Amino acid sequence: MKQIKIVVAGPRGRMGKEALTLIENTEHFSLVGVIDRINEGKKVNEIKGLPNLDAIIYTDAIQCFQETAPDVLIDLTTPEIGRYHAELALDYGVRPVVGTTGFSKLDLERLSKLAKERQIGAIIAPNFAIGAILLMKFSQMAAKYFKDIEIIELHHDQKLDAPSGTAIKTAELISSVRESKKQGHPNEHETIQGARGAEFDGIHIHSVRLPGLIAHQEVMFGGHGQLLSIRHDSFNRESFMSGVKVSVETVMNLEVLVYGLENIIE
Amino acid sequence: MKQIKIVVAGPRGRMGKEALTLIENTEHFSLVGVIDRINEGKKVNEIKGLPNLDAIIYTDAIQCFQETAPDVLIDLTTPEIGRYHAELALDYGVRPVVGTTGFSKLDLERLSKLAKERQIGAIIAPNFAIGAILLMKFSQMAAKYFKDIEIIELHHDQKLDAPSGTAIKTAELISSVRESKKQGHPNEHETIQGARGAEFDGIHIHSVRLPGLIAHQEVMFGGHGQLLSIRHDSFNRESFMSGVKVSVETVMNLEVLVYGLENIIE
Amino acid sequence: MKQIKIVVAGPRGRMGKEALTLIENTEHFSLVGVIDRINEGKKVNEIKGLPNLDAIIYTDAIQCFQETAPDVLIDLTTPEIGRYHAELALDYGVRPVVGTTGFSKLDLERLSKLAKERQIGAIIAPNFAIGAILLMKFSQMAAKYFKDIEIIELHHDQKLDAPSGTAIKTAELISSVRESKKQGHPNEHETIQGARGAEFDGIHIHSVRLPGLIAHQEVMFGGHGQLLSIRHDSFNRESFMSGVKVSVETVMNLEVLVYGLENIIE
Amino acid sequence: MKQIKIVVAGPRGRMGKEALTLIENTEHFSLVGVIDRINEGKKVNEIKGLPNLDAIIYTDAIQCFQETAPDVLIDLTTPEIGRYHAELALDYGVRPVVGTTGFSKLDLERLSKLAKERQIGAIIAPNFAIGAILLMKFSQMAAKYFKDIEIIELHHDQKLDAPSGTAIKTAELISSVRESKKQGHPNEHETIQGARGAEFDGIHIHSVRLPGLIAHQEVMFGGHGQLLSIRHDSFNRESFMSGVKVSVETVMNLEVLVYGLENIIE
Repeated sequence: MKQIKIVVAGPRGRMGKEALTLIENTEHFSLVGVIDRINEGKKVNEIKGLPNLDAIIYTDAIQCFQETAPDVLIDLTTPEIGRYHAELALDYGVRPVVGTTGFSKLDLERLSKLAKERQIGAIIAPNFAIGAILLMKFSQMAAKYFKDIEIIELHHDQKLDAPSGTAIKTAELISSVRESKKQGHPNEHETIQGARGAEFDGIHIHSVRLPGLIAHQEVMFGGHGQLLSIRHDSFNRESFMSGVKVSVETVMNLEVLVYGLENIIE
Repeated sequence: MKQIKIVVAGPRGRMGKEALTLIENTEHFSLVGVIDRINEGKKVNEIKGLPNLDAIIYTDAIQCFQETAPDVLIDLTTPEIGRYHAELALDYGVRPVVGTTGFSKLDLERLSKLAKERQIGAIIAPNFAIGAILLMKFSQMAAKYFKDIEIIELHHDQKLDAPSGTAIKTAELISSVRESKKQGHPNEHETIQGARGAEFDGIHIHSVRLPGLIAHQEVMFGGHGQLLSIRHDSFNRESFMSGVKVSVETVMNLEVLVYGLENIIE
Repeated sequence: MKQIKIVVAGPRGRMGKEALTLIENTEHFSLVGVIDRINEGKKVNEIKGLPNLDAIIYTDAIQCFQETAPDVLIDLTTPEIGRYHAELALDYGVRPVVGTTGFSKLDLERLSKLAKERQIGAIIAPNFAIGAILLMKFSQMAAKYFKDIEIIELHHDQKLDAPSGTAIKTAELISSVRESKKQGHPNEHETIQGARGAEFDGIHIHSVRLPGLIAHQEVMFGGHGQLLSIRHDSFNRESFMSGVKVSVETVMNLEVLVYGLENIIE
Repeated sequence: MKQIKIVVAGPRGRMGKEALTLIENTEHFSLVGVIDRINEGKKVNEIKGLPNLDAIIYTDAIQCFQETAPDVLIDLTTPEIGRYHAELALDYGVRPVVGTTGFSKLDLERLSKLAKERQIGAIIAPNFAIGAILLMKFSQMAAKYFKDIEIIELHHDQKLDAPSGTAIKTAELISSVRESKKQGHPNEHETIQGARGAEFDGIHIHSVRLPGLIAHQEVMFGGHGQLLSIRHDSFNRESFMSGVKVSVETVMNLEVLVYGLENIIE
């Protein structure tokens, strides 16, 4: 496979470190530079806690792009810096892969226009966990054939909100292809309030919170005499890296901006 | 194994038929008579839909006990008839195994006293599904070591009440050995009402209702870095028969009345 | 929705009965006739065990098609009769939906040619359980992103062969889109033979056989820090009917023959 | 609750660190000293990577016991050192809790005799994951009522041996209370070798190995019309600490040596 030259912005964050490890372990990925606020001119392997890669650290993104001529920028910083880096990358012919939930509709439109003009691919992803993306995509597909759907999402007991954002996103996606439906028996009643869970357009969502759990979601589809269940277990942060890898590989063949990994999965 | 002579009351009901099939398929069980409202004097195998057993049908329970001298009476009729049969059985030295949820505390006390006087075993069981009984027993045991517990019960969408009776019974049993505990994050909040399910003494219960489902329950125990889950799936009525079998075998060695299968399981 | 006029061949078989019940319970389906070997001229509701529908029974398929002018033929007979009925249906402008695993490649080619000439849709399906079809389709899609895959299939203990046909079919479908891969640790070893299951092109398949179980399959995809699982539980024969329903609705909009439900699911 | 004074041997190992964290977070536990090969006389909080506790480090176990007069010794070193420490502890009136799989039958007999003489409790545990212990205990109990049993154990794909030690231990425990039984259909056959898994006294064991997985085990019990499943998921090393906690609390009330946590669980 053709070698892909990569710059990582935000190398010392938890996600950034994982990205460096991913590059280190992927044969056809090369790290040619990193962008950080500090450590100008040092090498990655001189910084404690980072992997043994000898790419140079730049504090100036423009200088980095000019000197290293990367194919792809992986940006795992903040929405504000990510937006600036993404625009700059497109200007310099570098394909940005940005992990953020913080871009506004306007941000996306401006970047999309820019990518189109330059005919350069770009991927902006609120979620890189490819398994979670597949779960949502499959759920949307299954909802055409099974109209009765319940979602169980399970997280550690330090989570504040219920249902989880992913559960609501899943229900929204299902809802966009399924007619509204009141599920369960028309006369069903709760002898203890809340038993039947939260309701989103007729879909019931149940939130389990227990110590020990990490991040899990199951979508259940019931039909005559059968049950189809799709489940995703996210055990640790590494789970995001498979999505980063697919994004880097895919962005090389794009000439437009794509928002959301669900749109690059076939 | 020593042969056990059995009389069945209520042979034409769904449970009764299963009991006859159980006896037919169990080598050390013999059917010596049945008690029914109709078909006096006929044989079981003359009645359409009943298994090929040649025991005689009695409409008079006393006559049946006198002529067939059974070891055990399996009663699967109604609470009213079951109560009458159980007393009669104890009077005639027959050990009653009665499946009912309808006996009052007074009923149980009177029968218990009678069994003790005669030193004859008796078993009254609201639930014969041995798997469900084990689920409840194990849950109670696990609750000593894991204080954070959630219950998910799943049933077909024709069920009216939520949570299920078994889920509430399970929560009660757990609650009887566990100090009350508010689970989840102290500041957790539901963005859609009901997400966190029903609450019973701090235990959360979630009720899933989908076509295709039958009767399922899972109890989840979360602890540091681990999860223990106990699940029971009841696929059909046959599931009750394993409990009837154990009851018949156990009642032969009892000299008192036992209420609930959980009390004969070690 | 426009009413669809249906003829059922093989009404007294287990699948045939379910098909009649499906038609009875679907508002936009009408039964206009049935084809059977016996009961010429009688009505469906005159036959014991069949639902209360007043369509007429024909022993001659040609006469049936001529007199009832159906839109769709549902054939649930044998491969031999099904082949004959399917050809005849296409000749008479009736769209066949045939449930069979017994058609040869030549059979399919001849029927396919016929359908094309007449520009009439036809569906031949070895499996109507829509949940099982989705399971296979999703598994094939997920295999593009997750290369490490194991299949667990669980059936009642009266099943003779292991792995199940569906498990092997699933592995074949995955195998057709995934490069061969030796999974697990290169030096892994079984201390008891068989522990790692059957191997099909690197995919491991495990067959569980227990009394109580019905027909279940789970496909597990492992990746860095995550697991994606897709599971189908088939609890009874009704599960096939959702696929028959989708087929009848879809065949109305086809002008060619489609083999396998996976090819009509989007 | 009465304060328990504890010494930890092996504080810098992975388990040792977890034990220190456990003590730090448990109100009625106090760390009064630690035993290590190095850092004589320093305090725990002077050592990088250890929690903020000010107990003193001893390289001499005798001196440690004399100066700190602990109630309990938690030993998480090696079998050789653990054996020495355990004997010494009993000599000095300290109750040992030792985590090891490496003690021989003779080691256990000698320590057991010593504990009995001194009437001092001791716990030796090959496995501290209380959830795994409960899984084994419940499995043994359920096996009295359900004779058809299969085990699925699932681990990361770096594991070398299959089945896992815990799966074999579970099968042994079940086997000790269940008559041997050939499961499945008498004429069942594998079309691909290994499909039916490993066999241990008739119990089938299936080993799944996938990246992403950690350490999981499920025991399934099938009966007429029902399934009972007990599952343990171990997500990280913390899972062992609940067992250490229970052991420390229990050893205070023992006057003999107990081997295996399954023997202190009621």
